[in-house]
Amino acid sequence: MKNYSADHPGSYSCQAWSSVWAPNLVHVLACSALVLVVIMAAMTSTMVQAVDPDQLQDFCVADLSPTNPVIVNGFPCKPSANVTSKDFLFTGLSTPATVPTTGIKATATFATVFEYPALNTLGISHARLDFGPGGVIPPHTHPLASETLYVLEGTIYTGFVSYEGVLYAETLKVGDLYVFPKGTVHFQINVGTTHAASLNALTSQDPGLLFVGNHLLASNIPDAVLETSLGINATALKYLQASVPPLQGF
Amino acid sequence: MKNYSADHPGSYSCQAWSSVWAPNLVHVLACSALVLVVIMAAMTSTMVQAVDPDQLQDFCVADLSPTNPVIVNGFPCKPSANVTSKDFLFTGLSTPATVPTTGIKATATFATVFEYPALNTLGISHARLDFGPGGVIPPHTHPLASETLYVLEGTIYTGFVSYEGVLYAETLKVGDLYVFPKGTVHFQINVGTTHAASLNALTSQDPGLLFVGNHLLASNIPDAVLETSLGINATALKYLQASVPPLQGF
Amino acid sequence: MKNYSADHPGSYSCQAWSSVWAPNLVHVLACSALVLVVIMAAMTSTMVQAVDPDQLQDFCVADLSPTNPVIVNGFPCKPSANVTSKDFLFTGLSTPATVPTTGIKATATFATVFEYPALNTLGISHARLDFGPGGVIPPHTHPLASETLYVLEGTIYTGFVSYEGVLYAETLKVGDLYVFPKGTVHFQINVGTTHAASLNALTSQDPGLLFVGNHLLASNIPDAVLETSLGINATALKYLQASVPPLQGF
Amino acid sequence: MKNYSADHPGSYSCQAWSSVWAPNLVHVLACSALVLVVIMAAMTSTMVQAVDPDQLQDFCVADLSPTNPVIVNGFPCKPSANVTSKDFLFTGLSTPATVPTTGIKATATFATVFEYPALNTLGISHARLDFGPGGVIPPHTHPLASETLYVLEGTIYTGFVSYEGVLYAETLKVGDLYVFPKGTVHFQINVGTTHAASLNALTSQDPGLLFVGNHLLASNIPDAVLETSLGINATALKYLQASVPPLQGF
Amino acid sequence: MKNYSADHPGSYSCQAWSSVWAPNLVHVLACSALVLVVIMAAMTSTMVQAVDPDQLQDFCVADLSPTNPVIVNGFPCKPSANVTSKDFLFTGLSTPATVPTTGIKATATFATVFEYPALNTLGISHARLDFGPGGVIPPHTHPLASETLYVLEGTIYTGFVSYEGVLYAETLKVGDLYVFPKGTVHFQINVGTTHAASLNALTSQDPGLLFVGNHLLASNIPDAVLETSLGINATALKYLQASVPPLQGF
Amino acid sequence: MKNYSADHPGSYSCQAWSSVWAPNLVHVLACSALVLVVIMAAMTSTMVQAVDPDQLQDFCVADLSPTNPVIVNGFPCKPSANVTSKDFLFTGLSTPATVPTTGIKATATFATVFEYPALNTLGISHARLDFGPGGVIPPHTHPLASETLYVLEGTIYTGFVSYEGVLYAETLKVGDLYVFPKGTVHFQINVGTTHAASLNALTSQDPGLLFVGNHLLASNIPDAVLETSLGINATALKYLQASVPPLQGF
Repeated sequence: MKNYSADHPGSYSCQAWSSVWAPNLVHVLACSALVLVVIMAAMTSTMVQAVDPDQLQDFCVADLSPTNPVIVNGFPCKPSANVTSKDFLFTGLSTPATVPTTGIKATATFATVFEYPALNTLGISHARLDFGPGGVIPPHTHPLASETLYVLEGTIYTGFVSYEGVLYAETLKVGDLYVFPKGTVHFQINVGTTHAASLNALTSQDPGLLFVGNHLLASNIPDAVLETSLGINATALKYLQASVPPLQGF
Repeated sequence: MKNYSADHPGSYSCQAWSSVWAPNLVHVLACSALVLVVIMAAMTSTMVQAVDPDQLQDFCVADLSPTNPVIVNGFPCKPSANVTSKDFLFTGLSTPATVPTTGIKATATFATVFEYPALNTLGISHARLDFGPGGVIPPHTHPLASETLYVLEGTIYTGFVSYEGVLYAETLKVGDLYVFPKGTVHFQINVGTTHAASLNALTSQDPGLLFVGNHLLASNIPDAVLETSLGINATALKYLQASVPPLQGF
Repeated sequence: MKNYSADHPGSYSCQAWSSVWAPNLVHVLACSALVLVVIMAAMTSTMVQAVDPDQLQDFCVADLSPTNPVIVNGFPCKPSANVTSKDFLFTGLSTPATVPTTGIKATATFATVFEYPALNTLGISHARLDFGPGGVIPPHTHPLASETLYVLEGTIYTGFVSYEGVLYAETLKVGDLYVFPKGTVHFQINVGTTHAASLNALTSQDPGLLFVGNHLLASNIPDAVLETSLGINATALKYLQASVPPLQGF
Repeated sequence: MKNYSADHPGSYSCQAWSSVWAPNLVHVLACSALVLVVIMAAMTSTMVQAVDPDQLQDFCVADLSPTNPVIVNGFPCKPSANVTSKDFLFTGLSTPATVPTTGIKATATFATVFEYPALNTLGISHARLDFGPGGVIPPHTHPLASETLYVLEGTIYTGFVSYEGVLYAETLKVGDLYVFPKGTVHFQINVGTTHAASLNALTSQDPGLLFVGNHLLASNIPDAVLETSLGINATALKYLQASVPPLQGF
Repeated sequence: MKNYSADHPGSYSCQAWSSVWAPNLVHVLACSALVLVVIMAAMTSTMVQAVDPDQLQDFCVADLSPTNPVIVNGFPCKPSANVTSKDFLFTGLSTPATVPTTGIKATATFATVFEYPALNTLGISHARLDFGPGGVIPPHTHPLASETLYVLEGTIYTGFVSYEGVLYAETLKVGDLYVFPKGTVHFQINVGTTHAASLNALTSQDPGLLFVGNHLLASNIPDAVLETSLGINATALKYLQASVPPLQGF
Repeated sequence: MKNYSADHPGSYSCQAWSSVWAPNLVHVLACSALVLVVIMAAMTSTMVQAVDPDQLQDFCVADLSPTNPVIVNGFPCKPSANVTSKDFLFTGLSTPATVPTTGIKATATFATVFEYPALNTLGISHARLDFGPGGVIPPHTHPLASETLYVLEGTIYTGFVSYEGVLYAETLKVGDLYVFPKGTVHFQINVGTTHAASLNALTSQDPGLLFVGNHLLASNIPDAVLETSLGINATALKYLQASVPPLQGF
């Protein structure tokens, strides 16, 4: 759990940044890693809450101020006298995000209670995914929410793995919906030749996010545990840990 | 509560129908009424369930068969052996609905557990709204869900009334989000000059729907109650009851 | 949502008040309007919370003090050392309220968490209704609670409209019970020739209250939306808005 | 848990019965015991369910038929086509119950989901208590509900014991309310000189009922356990077990 | 409800203490009473919370500091920056507790949110029971949790009484599990000739605890109520109240 | 979701089996894989349910019969007339499981609603872990439950990764407790030189189980997605997929 008074910009792109600090990228995943780091840093620093209990008022716009004297299960409310109609409006998903041209070639933009405090107590949040051709959102799970995906643009192959390990996946076109039950591992890949985008809805104001590969390989779980669990030796594990997109800000 | 084994087509348009049976419409609201009737018939026959308890499995695709021997709180599950990846895909919101050119000039298309049985136990559903210029979705409430609206196309003025009677409303452009807390009365109107559309998410597999005006005027509440409540006489009430779009299939 | 540190007297009558400030009432609904305003002001300023999560202690008597440094989802607890047996006693429903002789001829008295702080976290509240002959409680809904009505005195016709628009209503005598499912629109009318009264129980410490007609007509929803929704022109709408009991304190 | 297809009459009186089968009662508690047995048999056979999850439809009138092929957590629904407005009406609390003149001198009448199937899924039930002078409802607890008591007639001393063992009790007059938090032990005694009665509301369709003394002494808990727990020897325990009102139908 | 900033040692034994202050005990239950008092004082001062709502973060380690400015439903969180891996470790159940050689000859050690703050919001707690030969944990109930018992050592006869008064009990050996549904009265007795011990799990961070006999007899419920309820006269009641282990700290 | 009428033995060991069908194991992980397959097959076929709603009776022993005519959210109840005290007893965790001498060198034995039907509706289950020296339970998550681990024997290093990717881990001795919040990835390793064992409690009758590595690598997620997500090429991925313990029965 992270202190939720942190700064939470909603959208990220790799290309612009990488052109500044890494003009001669040699590793194909450098930008991918960066993007992933930023995505995960953003999501994990913001998405730490969910399976929301029933609301207790018509609304309780979150007061995210770091000066609140008590940290509670969820968020305190902004005084209603200070709430205006603008609080219920969120414009941060209105434009496609810039997508990196290398690596995972995908970008996620969020509208959780951190970016959109009016969602507090209402049990819902959103994300927008943008993909270049071949762009991938790596396998991940939200511990605290089911999710739907609605294709805004392009062609996306997406699916989830049931608790028993069965893959349910389909290729979606514009306007198609797919649903990922709570706690299942799921992924998205742009299988078209053009830009793709989706609007996703999640059944929590802050559903949590675990990228499975990174959670396994880059979280200081002892090597002995990982070697036995993956059936590989120390050399192979080291290679894998070096390959997986690092999560410096995770 | 309606038997949920009924047939639930997801989308409706007025223009085509009215051209058949009412080529010489004299009352400007005839089509509006028809559309509203169909919308409400569709929604009310399908949206009768919500504030969903936690799921008890990864998934439980609804078995809507009328041959189930027991009616339970919610829906029984289709045997998992019969579930395929196609069950999790819904394509019914992929194209704009035809919008009537008179009356409310708006159409709603639904993706609740009735049209999209995979949503069963997952606590979410969707609707797509299409509006001609000036099109209106009349004030209504969902007893069992909060709702978000994401503008797909056009310019929409929308808002909700708090439990205390305060209106919170804004004009939204493409990509903007608005949120309507559970149980609040809300409405939408296309204030642009072109077609408008939105994708809405609701925090229940079947959130319920009450069009406020119709619920008040067209539900056999005694005239004496209505006259006193609205501060009008019998003549004015009769006029009003005749004017409000009828809800034959409600 | 209103700041819940406001003052919440529990019972109101019109007759006494109107004789002071409006001795020559010409509009038959003036007192009705006043009563309704006061009822709704009272209920809406107090009834903004519900579908209560499970209690986390044996009791948590609400601390309604405006000096609490944090507004939470629900109410903070009074220190248990300050709680006495008197906290669990509420005497505010013990006598019939004075009922106005004109207008809706009915009065509501409340025992929600605002008047009766011991109800905090316990998921229940009460109201008492008093009616003169012909007295009416206008159609309304509680977004966050189911309700029962027990007739203490007289003969009351009451009912609710299902989500599908079907009216279920009966005439009740002393000692009869009726139940209104959560979110349904319901009403009461004294159909006897003497005073009538009921004790009502609601499944939330603060169930919310929306008077349907007023919520539709007196909440600043744009006229264009209302005209289309009700199928009436601007003149008829203006008339209706002028007729419906105003909700100045709403 | 008892099969819930059993017969559940709602109200009991001792005097009439005892005059038939036990005209020469020598033990002062015989009638008390009988009444208590009947009360507990009635309540325990009917009150076995609670802390109700949210409703999933506007209503789901319980189908208590013993021919249902599956026993579920809660009750299946009667087909809505068979539901009428009479289902929502309950008249069984409309008249005072006959109260025995010996023993506990009190009678309870119930309106739980067993007597009033429309309460199914709505999270509420009722009971009516009638007391002769000195009449007592013995200390008991409802595992699955909080409760309020509203005095209809007479003067009642009532209270509950907090989880820490502190008694909170008051003397109530007509129209007074008291609240017993979920799981607390509580009791009632008519401290006036005339008949007393109350209307009680419980936050579950079937809240459960445990009479503490009987549950301890008359439930086949081994004597060795009871002797050590109460600090008494076998003789004293035998005396106590013989004295406590037997629970033959329990 | 007790202020939860109190001191909560987790384990108690009688023998050592009683040898200091009561070397010549004549009443066989003196130590039993002491132990029970301490157990109940400990449990009741700590176990006042349960049926926990869903967690809203991955963790929220309880901040039990008495300086928190607001008492909420549950506990506020310790800032996550101050949380370390040690917070999730609890060592207080690692060794058998000393068991008194007289009286109930049993000891309970707790790991609820008060002793183990990391359990906050996670809906679970533990207790360890230690018994000398013949040792008894008196009949009790947890208002807010179901419980399992796993035998670590010895032979234990345990059971619960259903809501209808039916006893379900069995003799358990090492490694056996038994389950006590929420709100049922249950007990344990060491029926072996050696020390016995169990590890218990409860479905709440603070499940509440009511020792049935003490709650009935030693909580200031009026004598008139108890005499009628138990079918005994004043003399017998006085005897019983003197015999039951006193609960001075309760 | 798997049909829950399947056969669910509770405990598995590799050594005996592998000596039959694979006397000359060349791959060090063959037995590990087998064990893991069996563990996961067992757990995934049985652990598919959780975050249990409140119980609605004192008990509802699961009727797992495949002849039930309707599959519901959770399990139907065995008729209470057929329930005996033996239903509440579970003896399957009473003896240490045989542990394989190669591979993961660990065994899990379960007591979920499938092996222990009395847990139905009570929101709890258990598992017993047995480890040879160096034995490992690979990183996994339970989508629907928090978990505690109590060390019965030996020395275990265990921990979990927070949603943000921070590892919280400690070395535990006999009698120590650790807690893994719901949805977090956690693991166990026997770091002692002797056999180790633990008793685990989970806050659901059937908490679900996802072994992270296998879920990522052996669930038919497209290679292109995995290569991009892990930052490796096709050759490395093939190697990894061949190395990870296969999940034939998954």
